[in-house]
Amino acid sequence: MIIMFTTIVSPLFADLDILGHINNNVLGSWFELGRNDIFKIFTPDLNANFENWKLIMLKTEYEFLNQMFFGTDVEIRTYVFRIGNKSFTTYHEAWQNNILCAKGKATMVHYDFIKQESMTIPDNIRKELEQHLID
Amino acid sequence: MIIMFTTIVSPLFADLDILGHINNNVLGSWFELGRNDIFKIFTPDLNANFENWKLIMLKTEYEFLNQMFFGTDVEIRTYVFRIGNKSFTTYHEAWQNNILCAKGKATMVHYDFIKQESMTIPDNIRKELEQHLID
Amino acid sequence: MIIMFTTIVSPLFADLDILGHINNNVLGSWFELGRNDIFKIFTPDLNANFENWKLIMLKTEYEFLNQMFFGTDVEIRTYVFRIGNKSFTTYHEAWQNNILCAKGKATMVHYDFIKQESMTIPDNIRKELEQHLID
Amino acid sequence: MIIMFTTIVSPLFADLDILGHINNNVLGSWFELGRNDIFKIFTPDLNANFENWKLIMLKTEYEFLNQMFFGTDVEIRTYVFRIGNKSFTTYHEAWQNNILCAKGKATMVHYDFIKQESMTIPDNIRKELEQHLID
Repeated sequence: MIIMFTTIVSPLFADLDILGHINNNVLGSWFELGRNDIFKIFTPDLNANFENWKLIMLKTEYEFLNQMFFGTDVEIRTYVFRIGNKSFTTYHEAWQNNILCAKGKATMVHYDFIKQESMTIPDNIRKELEQHLID
Repeated sequence: MIIMFTTIVSPLFADLDILGHINNNVLGSWFELGRNDIFKIFTPDLNANFENWKLIMLKTEYEFLNQMFFGTDVEIRTYVFRIGNKSFTTYHEAWQNNILCAKGKATMVHYDFIKQESMTIPDNIRKELEQHLID
Repeated sequence: MIIMFTTIVSPLFADLDILGHINNNVLGSWFELGRNDIFKIFTPDLNANFENWKLIMLKTEYEFLNQMFFGTDVEIRTYVFRIGNKSFTTYHEAWQNNILCAKGKATMVHYDFIKQESMTIPDNIRKELEQHLID
Repeated sequence: MIIMFTTIVSPLFADLDILGHINNNVLGSWFELGRNDIFKIFTPDLNANFENWKLIMLKTEYEFLNQMFFGTDVEIRTYVFRIGNKSFTTYHEAWQNNILCAKGKATMVHYDFIKQESMTIPDNIRKELEQHLID
């Protein structure tokens, strides 16, 4: 059984561009908002500082399938796509009016910002991530 | 009786700056999100296009009273502050952990984008705005 | 003699909104970019961290005089408007095609983030700020 | 001979996140700024409106190789990576202090927003794009 995370976002008027749809640049923020649930697995109180925070971004990708518009909420669905030794990949979808409008992935490294080096993902965190692993 | 609008926003990790608090630049978007309820008074379906949209921004101001942080939702409260002949002013507050952290105002002009000229606010809209008028 | 700072910004396609003009939310970033020259007076190497950085935002305001468009650079002009004991105010203008399109102010407090308290602006910094003081 | 486009961007203080580096979300805007030179091949006056604009985003990807910091300009280098029948892909790099810090690609479709359908890229535009085609 996969436990999916969901987050609702309301588009801003300013998220529209001249073409009358939500500009593609916004998705980075929306998918990051969905990742808050993943961040809590690493830092439960979300107390982000140089000592506590353990994730650095390696790679993101976004695919735009259908245009999104202003005036209707968007559901962000967040899963884990891959768990490596020191890094893992999240998978994200944006749904509006029951249409899958965008999807994306983000690969983050488990990272010690003090030593500036990557770290193995501990077993307890790995087990939690596995609950959200999509096929 | 004043009817206040409320909107909940979840800070992004990226909203933090190096000082460990939510950067002041974010408030413009958060207060605009709160204004969606005001926008609906003018354009009920929020179908924003050059013919339908009737508001242009004249002036905004923001006051930062207490630092806001990542990890806790923020409540945006939205009121009407002033109703003029062709323009009106909204008033906004951001609350986190029951602390008033920021407040602001925005003055918008009722505007015809086709003719590029300001217009009188119609009486039915004025009456709706008055329900949200704070002292 | 007043020494004005100038910074050139190129609008992004995404800065446009559905109304075909630059969305008002962008000005916060553009004026902050212009403030980099002011930030250097306080932190010459712009090495921003919790120990070095000495400014916290208290208040901003923006006035939108003329619409700005995509495809032409914008000149940001930055001045000092007021120098108080522990705080000061900057004044900003955005010019496009020789038209003053927006202006704004920002009031910042000289601040110790470690002690979380405001500090007097030292005389040498005050003297530097005075060189950019507009009437 | 490949003609590379270059654009200089100055990081904002607000582009920093709590980890003391430029947040990954910013790259979308920076690479889009670099694409202005590509946009001009399709719409020379950058007069962006529903009739004139001919590009819709299909896919973006970003890779973060080295951390970027506040206080030093970043050079964005823009190339064409692939030219298909109705779509093409741009390639982007961000350099700071002579270090390649991030790279990315964006695939856009030549698109008629009125008819809401994709269009063949005309030969004269294809020839111009070819001048910027990287191996």
